[in-house]
Amino acid sequence: MNQAKLEITPIGHVEADESRGLFRLQIDEPYRPALLGLDRCTHAIVFWWADQHDNPEDRANSLVMDLPYAPDVRSGVFANRSQARPNPIAITTAYLLNIDQESGVVDLAYIDAFNGTPLVDIKPYLPMSDLVLSAEYPDWMEGFPDSMEDAAEFFSDPENIKKFS
Amino acid sequence: MNQAKLEITPIGHVEADESRGLFRLQIDEPYRPALLGLDRCTHAIVFWWADQHDNPEDRANSLVMDLPYAPDVRSGVFANRSQARPNPIAITTAYLLNIDQESGVVDLAYIDAFNGTPLVDIKPYLPMSDLVLSAEYPDWMEGFPDSMEDAAEFFSDPENIKKFS
Repeated sequence: MNQAKLEITPIGHVEADESRGLFRLQIDEPYRPALLGLDRCTHAIVFWWADQHDNPEDRANSLVMDLPYAPDVRSGVFANRSQARPNPIAITTAYLLNIDQESGVVDLAYIDAFNGTPLVDIKPYLPMSDLVLSAEYPDWMEGFPDSMEDAAEFFSDPENIKKFS
Repeated sequence: MNQAKLEITPIGHVEADESRGLFRLQIDEPYRPALLGLDRCTHAIVFWWADQHDNPEDRANSLVMDLPYAPDVRSGVFANRSQARPNPIAITTAYLLNIDQESGVVDLAYIDAFNGTPLVDIKPYLPMSDLVLSAEYPDWMEGFPDSMEDAAEFFSDPENIKKFS
């Protein structure tokens, strides 16, 4: 096994301002040609670098944790979506509102990344490989929404947001 | 914007032998505790490093391409799933067959990565964030399967495999 470090170069960054309902990807100039045709897709999987957790402690000490939303459950980080992980990459599947290739702007309905977060990749959401109808939640997530569409309604209730914080 | 390189450390590697129907993740010893609880999930999203495309040419020249399975379509790499991309990270959503935390072995039904491919991360597939019922394909994918379950049947026909190669 080659244990050399693998290198990621950011392709842009997130612009997010919840108070204005602004959720945007700003793609750096050299990478803008890669947006060609993304407007034919309804959803994309956005890969971003959880830079607030890119430090040796978070990367090393994130292996097992208590889940804040499931108090009696110890969970390995490969079984949850914590942003503190050995390689702090996160993904968000997002609805695409508008794409302007020339300025490198991709407007999204929502993304759960902070303003300024470095972007790693964008992939089209393809039901063939990404939509799993038979996937089951771990038991500690019972009662949680069954799809991204359901989640939008679920999280419009502040009580439900508290369950995750 | 911080344009410094971001560093990935492999957490293990893929073991794949299609002739034996073996598709396995071998997790390196230090990361095995992070598997705790993954056995409560039916599916995981496996992040892997497309190391065969980790070279300056593939990373720089992969921005726009002709799609082999849609001859008249030029496509930016952010609108397709080519493994040659600015940051050669790929994801595969996979059905989990068996997990042995002590030996770091995760047996999968299938993964489309070569034997020896470095692993970057494992995340649980959570319908709340990953299952999008309303996602539409780009028009050039019309006739392709509508879910991962449908894809399993679709790709059991060699004629259909040809469409992607």
